[in-house]
Amino acid sequence: MNAILYIDLLGTFAFAISGVMTAVEKKFDFFGAIILAFVTAVGGGTLRDILIGAKPVGWLESDWHIWIVLSALPISYLFFRWLKRLRKTLLLFDTIGIGLFTILGIQKALAFELSPIVAIMMGVISAVFGGILRDVLANEIPLIFRKEVYAFACLSGAVVYLGLSYISQFELINMIVAIATVLTIRILALLRKWSIPFNPR
Amino acid sequence: MNAILYIDLLGTFAFAISGVMTAVEKKFDFFGAIILAFVTAVGGGTLRDILIGAKPVGWLESDWHIWIVLSALPISYLFFRWLKRLRKTLLLFDTIGIGLFTILGIQKALAFELSPIVAIMMGVISAVFGGILRDVLANEIPLIFRKEVYAFACLSGAVVYLGLSYISQFELINMIVAIATVLTIRILALLRKWSIPFNPR
Amino acid sequence: MNAILYIDLLGTFAFAISGVMTAVEKKFDFFGAIILAFVTAVGGGTLRDILIGAKPVGWLESDWHIWIVLSALPISYLFFRWLKRLRKTLLLFDTIGIGLFTILGIQKALAFELSPIVAIMMGVISAVFGGILRDVLANEIPLIFRKEVYAFACLSGAVVYLGLSYISQFELINMIVAIATVLTIRILALLRKWSIPFNPR
Repeated sequence: MNAILYIDLLGTFAFAISGVMTAVEKKFDFFGAIILAFVTAVGGGTLRDILIGAKPVGWLESDWHIWIVLSALPISYLFFRWLKRLRKTLLLFDTIGIGLFTILGIQKALAFELSPIVAIMMGVISAVFGGILRDVLANEIPLIFRKEVYAFACLSGAVVYLGLSYISQFELINMIVAIATVLTIRILALLRKWSIPFNPR
Repeated sequence: MNAILYIDLLGTFAFAISGVMTAVEKKFDFFGAIILAFVTAVGGGTLRDILIGAKPVGWLESDWHIWIVLSALPISYLFFRWLKRLRKTLLLFDTIGIGLFTILGIQKALAFELSPIVAIMMGVISAVFGGILRDVLANEIPLIFRKEVYAFACLSGAVVYLGLSYISQFELINMIVAIATVLTIRILALLRKWSIPFNPR
Repeated sequence: MNAILYIDLLGTFAFAISGVMTAVEKKFDFFGAIILAFVTAVGGGTLRDILIGAKPVGWLESDWHIWIVLSALPISYLFFRWLKRLRKTLLLFDTIGIGLFTILGIQKALAFELSPIVAIMMGVISAVFGGILRDVLANEIPLIFRKEVYAFACLSGAVVYLGLSYISQFELINMIVAIATVLTIRILALLRKWSIPFNPR
């Protein structure tokens, strides 16, 4: 399915842009921007592949992930203002990418004959750990630990996708429904400022 | 040996609780608490397995580690005050768990035909890196680099266990002696405020 | 080639010293110094081996990396003042080590049948990620993201080495030219305070 390739590409690119934006905010140099772009874009899938034992990690098997990430540097340099203003539109691509990463993570874990709950975890890890590693390298507390609810959106999408895969053979429809779930929950969460605090006392 | 399974379970649970406590201190949300619980509980063993090339990493092979870690969330939510007051008792379980993790790490490294000194390192890494990764994700300098002496306790237990394994066939006794070593050194270190500074000038 | 072994040894030692120096600055204890020495010395090669799927990671296959790193502790303790004054001379060994790490990284990636661009990345990662992980564990923004230009030196050396390997059979000469490239660029960059900022607006 070519659509998957394009969405993967789009998601990778959106993540790389997010890494570059953080690098600019933190006044990193050119090399810092490259590293942060890579870590954000491929960090989640890398951790998943390391945990499940895929070798080498997926993005090393062909060069196009590398070119996509590298292309984010000149593009974000040239269109920086424009990208800052378009953050809301980018969020859309970003969220579609996150949804797809979640699903691809589940599929890969299942292909390695891991259990459904492990597969759900691997899906969520694929989608969220790029951002976590970006924040660790930028010496910040990961955003997702405090404000963002997109981990919850991924988790929901992961459960929906895995549930559907037991009852429906229409792979493409299952994927679209799961990605739509991620998108809906994330957008609702942002609009209504949902949060899931954890304050025992 | 069923006892090993129970101590592993207990140690994993104690580590997960420690991750949740840190998340609460740092005002992380629900998802941040889950991640920190997992990283603390399985981070050390994960790093060991990645280094020695075990695939997939051990805790993915069955689901019970995952359920134990997840169970730490509601339990620490409901019994938060009680857990805070019981920190000293928890330290006991925690240290028994650390001792066991050290031994299991050594055994796994030896099973992969690595050298004795590598095995000792893998034992110590299994026991201490969960806490290190917890602190890195919480954007703190790892506690163990400055105050805690339990790395030294693990190292002593590791050396004792490996030494015994050359001279005694009584595996269970070797393990008990090694865990007792870890426990004794850690408790003595806490009571007498031992520290091993490194201040060249 | 025995020369490679000695330079690898020298580079590992120089990196371990750099980890210990950071630990002293941050007032870490003895154990913190050991961990930081190891992470700095073997972190880059470890990440490379994990990414390409080498198992176990290279430095576990023989014990001498471990002894070299451990020897950095007493040596930096005894000769601390002397080492601080000699920082410039050390930089020389350090840079030769970095150059060699870059080349060894490329060779290993090519031996795993990865593409040239992946090989270049693996070379640079081998050389720079030890320092990045050292800074992350010390809770600092990685130095290399802001001030140091040695990433650029590594990248240049990597490209030179890979380019030469297509046109020349004289492996040793190729290596010397590549290491000389790294050394020249790093020294020029330090003397002339080169920097490659990334400030879109």
